[in-house]
Amino acid sequence: MSSATEALRDHACLIVHGPDRPGIVAAVSALVARHGGNIVSLDQYSDDPTGGDFFQRLVLHRPDLAGARAELEADLEATLAPLELSWRLTDRSVPKRMAILASTADHCLLDLLWRHRRGELPVTVPMVISNHTVAADDVASFGIRFEHVPTADVPRPEAEARILELLDGQVDFVVLARYMQILSADFLARVGVPVINIHHSFLPAFVGASPYRRAKERGVKLIGATAHYVTEDLDEGPIIEQDVVRVSHADSAADLQRRGADVERAVLSRAVLWHAEDRVIRSGNHCIVF
Amino acid sequence: MSSATEALRDHACLIVHGPDRPGIVAAVSALVARHGGNIVSLDQYSDDPTGGDFFQRLVLHRPDLAGARAELEADLEATLAPLELSWRLTDRSVPKRMAILASTADHCLLDLLWRHRRGELPVTVPMVISNHTVAADDVASFGIRFEHVPTADVPRPEAEARILELLDGQVDFVVLARYMQILSADFLARVGVPVINIHHSFLPAFVGASPYRRAKERGVKLIGATAHYVTEDLDEGPIIEQDVVRVSHADSAADLQRRGADVERAVLSRAVLWHAEDRVIRSGNHCIVF
Amino acid sequence: MSSATEALRDHACLIVHGPDRPGIVAAVSALVARHGGNIVSLDQYSDDPTGGDFFQRLVLHRPDLAGARAELEADLEATLAPLELSWRLTDRSVPKRMAILASTADHCLLDLLWRHRRGELPVTVPMVISNHTVAADDVASFGIRFEHVPTADVPRPEAEARILELLDGQVDFVVLARYMQILSADFLARVGVPVINIHHSFLPAFVGASPYRRAKERGVKLIGATAHYVTEDLDEGPIIEQDVVRVSHADSAADLQRRGADVERAVLSRAVLWHAEDRVIRSGNHCIVF
Amino acid sequence: MSSATEALRDHACLIVHGPDRPGIVAAVSALVARHGGNIVSLDQYSDDPTGGDFFQRLVLHRPDLAGARAELEADLEATLAPLELSWRLTDRSVPKRMAILASTADHCLLDLLWRHRRGELPVTVPMVISNHTVAADDVASFGIRFEHVPTADVPRPEAEARILELLDGQVDFVVLARYMQILSADFLARVGVPVINIHHSFLPAFVGASPYRRAKERGVKLIGATAHYVTEDLDEGPIIEQDVVRVSHADSAADLQRRGADVERAVLSRAVLWHAEDRVIRSGNHCIVF
Repeated sequence: MSSATEALRDHACLIVHGPDRPGIVAAVSALVARHGGNIVSLDQYSDDPTGGDFFQRLVLHRPDLAGARAELEADLEATLAPLELSWRLTDRSVPKRMAILASTADHCLLDLLWRHRRGELPVTVPMVISNHTVAADDVASFGIRFEHVPTADVPRPEAEARILELLDGQVDFVVLARYMQILSADFLARVGVPVINIHHSFLPAFVGASPYRRAKERGVKLIGATAHYVTEDLDEGPIIEQDVVRVSHADSAADLQRRGADVERAVLSRAVLWHAEDRVIRSGNHCIVF
Repeated sequence: MSSATEALRDHACLIVHGPDRPGIVAAVSALVARHGGNIVSLDQYSDDPTGGDFFQRLVLHRPDLAGARAELEADLEATLAPLELSWRLTDRSVPKRMAILASTADHCLLDLLWRHRRGELPVTVPMVISNHTVAADDVASFGIRFEHVPTADVPRPEAEARILELLDGQVDFVVLARYMQILSADFLARVGVPVINIHHSFLPAFVGASPYRRAKERGVKLIGATAHYVTEDLDEGPIIEQDVVRVSHADSAADLQRRGADVERAVLSRAVLWHAEDRVIRSGNHCIVF
Repeated sequence: MSSATEALRDHACLIVHGPDRPGIVAAVSALVARHGGNIVSLDQYSDDPTGGDFFQRLVLHRPDLAGARAELEADLEATLAPLELSWRLTDRSVPKRMAILASTADHCLLDLLWRHRRGELPVTVPMVISNHTVAADDVASFGIRFEHVPTADVPRPEAEARILELLDGQVDFVVLARYMQILSADFLARVGVPVINIHHSFLPAFVGASPYRRAKERGVKLIGATAHYVTEDLDEGPIIEQDVVRVSHADSAADLQRRGADVERAVLSRAVLWHAEDRVIRSGNHCIVF
Repeated sequence: MSSATEALRDHACLIVHGPDRPGIVAAVSALVARHGGNIVSLDQYSDDPTGGDFFQRLVLHRPDLAGARAELEADLEATLAPLELSWRLTDRSVPKRMAILASTADHCLLDLLWRHRRGELPVTVPMVISNHTVAADDVASFGIRFEHVPTADVPRPEAEARILELLDGQVDFVVLARYMQILSADFLARVGVPVINIHHSFLPAFVGASPYRRAKERGVKLIGATAHYVTEDLDEGPIIEQDVVRVSHADSAADLQRRGADVERAVLSRAVLWHAEDRVIRSGNHCIVF
């Protein structure tokens, strides 16, 4: 257990989500108090005070969290279910398991692995899967398992089946670090964990392929990147984070690609951090980010 | 009462600040609930979970707030004083009264008056005081009282006494919109309300006079502005907001001044908005901004 | 003649544009030298060194520019026409004449008028035309002519004819400061001067109506504004400038509109400045901005 | 020769710097033309049109540059020396040789090595020198020579002498990638090539040690980084590039350090790129960056 993880010992993150009504914060904070917990931080948002949705992220500290957890969860269910609120409780000292899918471009992949090694991301990385072998040595140098699942000249269902087999039960979420392959609806249904993608444009501008070339053609003055959860509708999933960088007429399409790469890795690393820290709550096609 | 103010009817903002300990959020939210209030938003921060300071901003809705206020306040005092917590409760439908002190440069002054007229700032403006008359007509065109208090060839105590006389009991805070006069410690002690200043540099860089000229001499690539509460120590008060803009070698000192003016008015308007909405809590020489 | 204009006395701006080939810079700078001019600044760009387009903006100083101008222009034509290069020479001490078309929202209109009064924009403002009267007093307080051309319950050709009549021969360019009316292809053909529009989104995201509402619906993390030349294809004209500001899930559609207004006026004022200083060269559907 | 370098074959960069006077651009561009060169790009700046300094960066293409170079240089000297202008001509297809000095923090070091491997930086890296061995394996995995020169318990002159011995004749510039050791005036005098440092604050704010801790204490809302040429006066050398990132009261000193690291590597990589492309001209304590 690293020192960073040690600092999170006996800390839990509680997410509560559902129809807003008076008294939720009071009910939840009283519940935490009666189980001997102390609220370390609390964020709360209501998209409409009358008849809207309520979102809450609460971090609590409770000595011997493991021992108290069963009772705490039973009380949460008894208290929140009648209010039609859904909830989940995660132990902050247990890092989420993240698989990375990559292709030939390595900037997002290496940035995530390097941040992980520095202790910036509260995750473990059980494996990196790529449809090319070019990153194999780099991944190995980080001491991480590398799996090659080719996609060229392979029927998509076959490649996807192999990936599902590798992921099965091993990961809590998947990151597409410029994977460049479209995943089928069937894959998304079967993978069973959230999948985060980085799209190399400021969505909804330049939905689809070749966004840098099209940005150059349209003469935009800013280019960007978008991290989002993957859904069946390509490039339409809930947005977690976006950012942009200024460009000019003098930048070639290759310049845009190079400069965009910096934005891509920055945006993706923030989205991964926030997801790993349970800061992102999906609601319809939106994300609440606390 | 404007429609914006109407939307805030029966809403109160509660600020709580003091030594952190378990159970504060639970105690406060239970208190709100037992007085029939609903928590609309809640922000909370502890600068050190063990032995640090606790800060909370809570917005609550309570039908007939005016009728319930006395009991609510009595309960707050009874509940929070034993915990050594200080608190204040403000009625969000009552705008704060803001005096503006200005000099010859009009960009910050006019930006505040224009935002006020658009309904962007929940304040009233009882008066603008200037040591020059150049802005008199503009201020009048906004329907706002203009007072001329000269400072040239006038002993500072005399000018300050006149300003104190004008402000006495009329305002809840004062904004120095590029006032360019140093206020005495005696003035600050006697004015009795917070004073916000806009400094035309990214403090602590270029403390003191002529920051744009010195920025040009140092060859910096970004210039900025800083809004802070005024204290006896010039340019050392708690920072509310800062921002910067990119410049280049090709920008003259006059260009820096022109481009800096845009940052100044943007930073000052945000600081004023946040102060007016009770989002800023001073703690020593820092500001917590929720 | 203001002191700012005085500083530009005897300065000319030369724009050269056409097919790239070796020796253009040498030919032009030799031409300037043999007419007794000194090159004050020179920007040059080629979109493809082999067979691409060449763009140049050159500022020169020539004592008694007025006296030398005819010969200079004759030499430019004799030198550049054989190279298939188009060119234009403008006297920098002669400000461009800018008409502003506005509607009910005043933030872009007032920002341009303020900047003009502060001497930030090298333009004159012969008139403001609005389809509403709400801004009449404000415009008058700047000492600028206000013309009301209603569009409600008026056939568009009739309103446009009235506007063309007002503009005829009076202006060098037109700014749509949130005018909110679509101008016909016929109007654009007949107006005979460039028309600059501010669109309240980061184009090409949210082309069309209600961009802030749609940005809210899509859950984007940045909103923006785009200044562009108006063409027949709505929201598709060459982009001059863009910028964005960060927003969050907690911002309502009204918040987006308020915060977007700040970006709109900043972006529009930069586009107007650059156009007025002859820094923008249109090429197809792109803008080169020097 | 890589394809990127291949694209720069027969391209030269010419820097001209000295007292401004009429006709310099014409003289230089005519000179390029009479040697059969084509001007690919030209940037030029004068800090004061009357009696100021003139700066020019010109990229030219000349088939068989190597064959023409001697004559070109002789003509440059003959033409520019009488005008008291200094100049330098570099072959763009020859990458500059960059040594990196590092310590324990690896973020700036690895970012430079990645970008170098991706072909983003037109440099070779003859060696990395560190006073710790922690980065040895990473550097080796890039196929780059690693030299360990300890500084703990070693007299500074001894360590510096060892570094000078390693660098002697091998490099065109040196980058301090968070080296964290102060280099003596004697070292700087003897190293004979430019030295670029990354300082972890927005200079001149927080000159000296522990800028993140002091930024936290002062309660600033933005933290930054500054890349500058190293001079005898610590943290006072000419600034090449700066940038900032927004922080809040909720960020701990460790958070500032983590978030600052991203700004540091971004700022340093831009400064290195611009230096390697001969875009930076030093003038007194300033940098002109084209």
